[in-house]
Amino acid sequence: MTERPEPIQALRDQLAVISDLRAAASVLQWDQQTYMPPGGGGGRALQLATLTRLAHEAFIAPRTAELLDACERLAATLDPDSDDAAIVRMTRRDYDRLTRLPADFVAERAREASLSTEVWKEARKRNDFAAYRPSLEKMADFARRTAEYLGYREHAYDALLDLYEPDMTAREVDVVFARLREVTVPFVQAIATRGRPVDDAVLHQDFPEDAQAAFGLAVAQAFGYDLSRGRLDVSAHPFASGFGTGDVRITTRYTRGNLTEAVFGIFHEAGHAMYEQGVAPELDRTLLARGASYALHESQSRMWENVVGRSRPFWEHYLPALRAHFPEQLAGVGVDTFYRAVNKVLPSLIRTSADEVTYNLHIMLRFDLEKALLEGTVRPAELPEAWNAKMEEYLGVRPPTDADGVLQDIHWSGGALGYFPTYTLGNVISVQLYEAATAAHPAIPEEIGRGEFSTLLGWLRQHVHRHGRKFLPREILQRATGQALTPEPYLGYLQRKFGEIYGLSGTGAVRTAAAP
Amino acid sequence: MTERPEPIQALRDQLAVISDLRAAASVLQWDQQTYMPPGGGGGRALQLATLTRLAHEAFIAPRTAELLDACERLAATLDPDSDDAAIVRMTRRDYDRLTRLPADFVAERAREASLSTEVWKEARKRNDFAAYRPSLEKMADFARRTAEYLGYREHAYDALLDLYEPDMTAREVDVVFARLREVTVPFVQAIATRGRPVDDAVLHQDFPEDAQAAFGLAVAQAFGYDLSRGRLDVSAHPFASGFGTGDVRITTRYTRGNLTEAVFGIFHEAGHAMYEQGVAPELDRTLLARGASYALHESQSRMWENVVGRSRPFWEHYLPALRAHFPEQLAGVGVDTFYRAVNKVLPSLIRTSADEVTYNLHIMLRFDLEKALLEGTVRPAELPEAWNAKMEEYLGVRPPTDADGVLQDIHWSGGALGYFPTYTLGNVISVQLYEAATAAHPAIPEEIGRGEFSTLLGWLRQHVHRHGRKFLPREILQRATGQALTPEPYLGYLQRKFGEIYGLSGTGAVRTAAAP
Repeated sequence: MTERPEPIQALRDQLAVISDLRAAASVLQWDQQTYMPPGGGGGRALQLATLTRLAHEAFIAPRTAELLDACERLAATLDPDSDDAAIVRMTRRDYDRLTRLPADFVAERAREASLSTEVWKEARKRNDFAAYRPSLEKMADFARRTAEYLGYREHAYDALLDLYEPDMTAREVDVVFARLREVTVPFVQAIATRGRPVDDAVLHQDFPEDAQAAFGLAVAQAFGYDLSRGRLDVSAHPFASGFGTGDVRITTRYTRGNLTEAVFGIFHEAGHAMYEQGVAPELDRTLLARGASYALHESQSRMWENVVGRSRPFWEHYLPALRAHFPEQLAGVGVDTFYRAVNKVLPSLIRTSADEVTYNLHIMLRFDLEKALLEGTVRPAELPEAWNAKMEEYLGVRPPTDADGVLQDIHWSGGALGYFPTYTLGNVISVQLYEAATAAHPAIPEEIGRGEFSTLLGWLRQHVHRHGRKFLPREILQRATGQALTPEPYLGYLQRKFGEIYGLSGTGAVRTAAAP
Repeated sequence: MTERPEPIQALRDQLAVISDLRAAASVLQWDQQTYMPPGGGGGRALQLATLTRLAHEAFIAPRTAELLDACERLAATLDPDSDDAAIVRMTRRDYDRLTRLPADFVAERAREASLSTEVWKEARKRNDFAAYRPSLEKMADFARRTAEYLGYREHAYDALLDLYEPDMTAREVDVVFARLREVTVPFVQAIATRGRPVDDAVLHQDFPEDAQAAFGLAVAQAFGYDLSRGRLDVSAHPFASGFGTGDVRITTRYTRGNLTEAVFGIFHEAGHAMYEQGVAPELDRTLLARGASYALHESQSRMWENVVGRSRPFWEHYLPALRAHFPEQLAGVGVDTFYRAVNKVLPSLIRTSADEVTYNLHIMLRFDLEKALLEGTVRPAELPEAWNAKMEEYLGVRPPTDADGVLQDIHWSGGALGYFPTYTLGNVISVQLYEAATAAHPAIPEEIGRGEFSTLLGWLRQHVHRHGRKFLPREILQRATGQALTPEPYLGYLQRKFGEIYGLSGTGAVRTAAAP
């Protein structure tokens, strides 16, 4: 049957059970967000708790350590690029981290996170930060203790960031973010003061949901999202979820009065889903059959949503198809008008609806505050004022209420400190990868203008997707692009694209690179 | 928190994990039948195998036996009608049966059943019994060995029947079936030769699926199917599936040229689902939160599909509502015509589309052949001829092909011998229960004529549903009706109803009983 050394096969068997339990939990969560009737909620929480606990117990069992030890004694005999070597390496990494957290601590944290999220929902609804503050204090404390358990060299933040972005440090993020901020803040001001105004009224008409879905899904399929291994449903909060490489689903939500939310949302989630559909099937049931990190995942969603989906060649090809779905709403609307509308830059209060240029400033603000919370230099009680001051500094706008400010995101309520930077790192990486792909295949921008995406997807499959979690994200980026993480390609892309849209030039250093 | 004796709480905790794993497996199966993309099939089979294996291992673990022993030492202190006493009693029953089957035997049987089902699908498609025969021989052999492992007093069939209908014996079924056959065979002949003909052409027109679904679901809700704890979807093979009392779903399939398949199918599945929605929520996560047996389950589906849903008062109330959905198709169709059409009796080849009167003859034939297979008095190679001979004897029709005869059902291919009788037992019990309900509440038939079902549902909730699997089916029937299983009420119902429809009288003893 197999020529695998016995301990490696035994480790794979153990991981297959854990992978199956995790996949089952993901199916239950997908169902909860899409079709589950309200009465199912209580039972579902208990079912999920059981599956999660069983998977965790199987993973941290002494048997896993014994198998890992035995496998590591064989490691010298394995090709380091082989699946087996990667399985041993990444399982060791996961195992050491997960076993550092005491089981009681994990359970207590999960319970408090669940309660805290409910408190946050109510507090946001009633714009009542004071009601939320005790929960936030508790979750910040859990985050600090998590970091202490996990250990770190330089900054407690590193331990948390590593959960989302393995091997990344706060210091590295600092360097990238400082450079982004240095260019972006004056660029946003230039757009506001000197830019040729963009009118996006065309996007705010009545767009029936069915037609939005049909167009969005047709494009996602053209990108390469395989519906024989996926599907699109509706949920309150859009997401992508995979249960193995043969079944990776996406959701979206429709707003009749807004064309872009669902359509670009589908592009975005399809980007996530194509990543997991592209993992080598040999990695199924190994714990490596998923994206390598949150930032690499976001680089794929942002690539298809923004770098491709908000490009001029894309709309030169697809505007007629969109117009066929909405003939009245888009009568007489030209590519230039439409392209400018979907790329309107406007400093605003809410991260999730921010444009490509201002989006990262929302992230930097959160990164700054998370570090300060961990260091204790900002106390939870001081967060609303600190938030609002940063908003003025970075974006020139001040939230009139906390609901539009510090209360807007769910992440902190669940204890997910260290997550936010991956959004912006994803943007940065999306352009690094895109430029590497176009350097290898200069025809890609033209192909996009013909509605052809297979060269780009093929390059991503080859250099990113198929590896799954076999390598650390920095290794995948280096192998794919020949570079370490750098914000310059991304800054060049932003300045070229939005400098042209807003009729600005000379607002910063523009590096040569292909762009669609 | 709780005053439960410690071993009982520990047993409940153990069963809760098993219940959660089984519920998760059911969600994955529901998803597989409704929304899963084709590419998910391979991974899903492995995920289901893992969940099933973990649940089985947890159940047959030595820990379960230790807890059971400890609980049984406390049994004298428990009220025998209490949940805790029932949990100990039924867990012991399940445990003893499941641990009698060697794990290797169960695994081999599952593998062969899966292969055999694939062979059967292909053989039915190609009308090739010879290709299927070796698989059938194998599954019949597994059934015989299963019976030997499980043990029995009188007939190997008893051991298999007990898996679906706990504590029922082949001898009891024989007595009931002999009486049913004695009345039904001449009754079917009388209908065919002397009955006033029924024209059901009205049911075979073009009926758009959306309207079928809207009407079917509106009726199911009126029956009492709670959509805050359920939902209706489409699947190739209709089913009901519960994941706890808070989430019990149904599916159906639509045929545009046939009004009755989906509509009565929804009534049927809603009957199953209302049973599980009606189990006392205190039984959730105990293994008792489901129907007491296959026959009791079928009594509920048949009650709502046939005893209620194919009654004259029902259609006196609902025909106008149905006509509102299909104004052209049902223009000028009166209640009498429609009521007669949905109750047309016609000996036919296929069990699943048989009418109320002839349906049970299909079951008796299968029961006879299953016993003969186990006894070895009919060999698999002789089955097609034995089948066709019985069809002529019971129904007066002879299948032109095996695909329309012995190859029509999936059950034997999966090794499910002993299952079929529960369909007819369900029909018998449905009328026993209905008559007990109307004896307690004589207004029920009138209420049905007003589209009110809460008295009937309330009686079923009180006397059947809430108990779940707390008691053996014969105990539930005795408590609810004051009677043991008897076919007389059901025979009286059939003769009154169809004697009236077909203008026959004096075709058999009619016992007094309320009927809608």
